[in-house]
Amino acid sequence: MTASGLVAVLRERGWTLGVAESLTGGAVTSEIVSVPGASVVLLGGVVAYATQLKRTLLGVDAALLAAHGPVHPEVARQMADGVRRAVAVDGRAADIGIATTGIAGPESPDGQPVGTVHVGVATPGGVRAAAHVFTGSRAEIRCRAVEAAIALALQAAGE
Amino acid sequence: MTASGLVAVLRERGWTLGVAESLTGGAVTSEIVSVPGASVVLLGGVVAYATQLKRTLLGVDAALLAAHGPVHPEVARQMADGVRRAVAVDGRAADIGIATTGIAGPESPDGQPVGTVHVGVATPGGVRAAAHVFTGSRAEIRCRAVEAAIALALQAAGE
Repeated sequence: MTASGLVAVLRERGWTLGVAESLTGGAVTSEIVSVPGASVVLLGGVVAYATQLKRTLLGVDAALLAAHGPVHPEVARQMADGVRRAVAVDGRAADIGIATTGIAGPESPDGQPVGTVHVGVATPGGVRAAAHVFTGSRAEIRCRAVEAAIALALQAAGE
Repeated sequence: MTASGLVAVLRERGWTLGVAESLTGGAVTSEIVSVPGASVVLLGGVVAYATQLKRTLLGVDAALLAAHGPVHPEVARQMADGVRRAVAVDGRAADIGIATTGIAGPESPDGQPVGTVHVGVATPGGVRAAAHVFTGSRAEIRCRAVEAAIALALQAAGE
């Protein structure tokens, strides 16, 4: 019930939410939407699956993407920060942004291990990322990434 | 296995895909991403949960939203068409766009029955929508909406 816990914490703080996803592909946002009343906090999300969309839709630095590829902690941080503005309503950015980037497998596009995942969270207090290497199937890795993203957001929202 | 069927059909046609979601909140995109090799066809998606994002991120007509609200077949059609451009890569829009809008419940914001769902699909051949009224829980209604969206896309991609 971590998604419902996150929605409850955000409601209590009066915070709005945006979500930027790569390997999880909408699964974090969908977990949030599964909670009745999610519309009070969730503004929307962006699935930036093609690398270029991380730049065009979320404002991730092109030189960073060129140098390190999309699976990098700073990319997760910039995605989390960028989605706050991407989902702005009435000119007001979301208070908190959550992001995921990583390699779900079965193949690795860049030589990093399958299961490498970076989750990022941006709030008015700052931006953070957490690095993981998950094992298991494509579905299991994506599921663990969703849990890690929501856990990091709960941590940041609880401070 | 309809998502894998859709990915297979799109691969065969050489078509790229964008997804715009409201009530399904990322679940359609996540179903697509669950298919290994989805990156060959999926460019990305937009979860336009707040009504205003249907305009700012997907280009849905503001007067249409003001007149009818977000749960309307023409909104689904415009979301499907708009997301093709939103996820453009190298200036090239996605070949096919899929969209969902509807009322998952438990409450209805505008008096239409809970379970009212419109799915839309846009291709180079045109834009179509299908209307449904699903029964069941919030989770069941969202699940049926995902299935309906993928089914309509399969129909359009198979022509």
